[in-house]
Amino acid sequence: MTPLEAALAETATRVERQISELIPARVVSHARLIAAMRYAALGGGKRLRPFLVLQSAGLFGAEGTGPMRAAAAVELIHCYSLVHDDLPAMDDDDLRRGRATAHIEFDEATAILAGDGLLTMAFELLADAATHPSAEVRAALVLALARAAGTEGMVGGQMIDLAAEGQNFDLTQISQLQAMKTGALIAVSVDAGAILGQADTNQRAALAAYARDLGLAFQIADDLLDVEGDQAEVGKGVGKDAAAGKATFVSLLGIDGARARARELVASATEHLAIFDARADLLRQVAKFVVARRN
Amino acid sequence: MTPLEAALAETATRVERQISELIPARVVSHARLIAAMRYAALGGGKRLRPFLVLQSAGLFGAEGTGPMRAAAAVELIHCYSLVHDDLPAMDDDDLRRGRATAHIEFDEATAILAGDGLLTMAFELLADAATHPSAEVRAALVLALARAAGTEGMVGGQMIDLAAEGQNFDLTQISQLQAMKTGALIAVSVDAGAILGQADTNQRAALAAYARDLGLAFQIADDLLDVEGDQAEVGKGVGKDAAAGKATFVSLLGIDGARARARELVASATEHLAIFDARADLLRQVAKFVVARRN
Repeated sequence: MTPLEAALAETATRVERQISELIPARVVSHARLIAAMRYAALGGGKRLRPFLVLQSAGLFGAEGTGPMRAAAAVELIHCYSLVHDDLPAMDDDDLRRGRATAHIEFDEATAILAGDGLLTMAFELLADAATHPSAEVRAALVLALARAAGTEGMVGGQMIDLAAEGQNFDLTQISQLQAMKTGALIAVSVDAGAILGQADTNQRAALAAYARDLGLAFQIADDLLDVEGDQAEVGKGVGKDAAAGKATFVSLLGIDGARARARELVASATEHLAIFDARADLLRQVAKFVVARRN
Repeated sequence: MTPLEAALAETATRVERQISELIPARVVSHARLIAAMRYAALGGGKRLRPFLVLQSAGLFGAEGTGPMRAAAAVELIHCYSLVHDDLPAMDDDDLRRGRATAHIEFDEATAILAGDGLLTMAFELLADAATHPSAEVRAALVLALARAAGTEGMVGGQMIDLAAEGQNFDLTQISQLQAMKTGALIAVSVDAGAILGQADTNQRAALAAYARDLGLAFQIADDLLDVEGDQAEVGKGVGKDAAAGKATFVSLLGIDGARARARELVASATEHLAIFDARADLLRQVAKFVVARRN
């Protein structure tokens, strides 16, 4: 196990524990809702976004409960988006991380409400004084996460993606779609660490540039997995983009071209971290990891 | 027109303008999402919750942009909940405020995303410095609204309501369901004004007691309208609770008993405002209004 793999695994375990504590299983009249939220948020996953929050915060010596709560909040937003995106009216997916999706395991109404509950809980978490003693920091976290998750970010990106079938998007349009749908949440993960660490303007800009390249590389790798991946290993349906007639980085650049572009972005992402010392090593390594991953 | 009616109408107009400015119609690739959000949030309605925010803030001299943004945020949460509750997988309603519901006018995927977008925007609004110069106030608003909207509030209440068919809920259970499903958002509307006005503990407690009685009176009146109301006047389907075999305040107390209980609650709500001067008169009047309304 490399140091990165060990750090990723440790983060995943800690995030799992943190979220489990935040959404305790309870015997209440809405126990089914709680169960669905736990199912959706505790299904494993790489926990890449929490990892970015914690590593970014760690650059500035910010550790402990606060960064962990912010990491969990970003992950709750990610999990809510998966639950809603998987719904029959949206992408209609039955399989996610090798398990039944939430609306299959429970039902559609419960899945919609579980997503709403996870999204709302993310903001509750961030606004609570337990996340940071400074209300300025907490309000900044809420604002950044809401912008990334909202109509100019993730929700808007999903809307564009739904309309993308047979649209023959070009590279600029695909890049814009990606920046909103997946890039914004990856970017805010890194930014949340900078906010928690009260980074200066230069540091925050460097991290933003890193996150932009990282997010794009991540999406290109996702498109490659959709073409080359094995369903059992990827843990979700593959080949869906091609079947839906959607343009992707692979359809526009070819497999080799997409791979080359991803490698360039990893190099560029890493360069943006030049102002940081060895404490940024895991951020450097995770950039390589996102394009080499098999799921 | 009574002073209350004039104030309600003026608030409704101002809220309509504020939300329209916050969600400008735009020619973007996700224009359909924006259009659905505007449709859902600009469809008129009583704007009762914004009215409560503004009147409560006004007790402490808090006026202008800040209270208006908080009022809009609460209304966006209310509108998102209507969009999601109306979905086929939930209450499956085609009619709302005399118009087609969002998933009928657009489609299910767009309605789900529009709801997500409105919910997220509410927190973005509150966390922005334009809402209040104090980050403590902004973080407190986010926290209060997230708690009211989340699993222990509105979302949890909707989950319980979905499971309520044929459950023979008693008065305690119906009251608990109501407190979560509709009461929490009414309560946080009043509380948001107190937070913005930096009310002291006594004032905040008095307003919370007022809001608790008001919310319950509101729900009893809703149950009465479901039995006695005319669909054209109410603007949404009526008689649905009885058809679904759900216990309501009317089925448990009878029409006369429910009316009497609503009147008691209005009197009690008004008494809680005794510590406030004439500036609370519209809050006193609106308590009477919510049980006398025809829609």
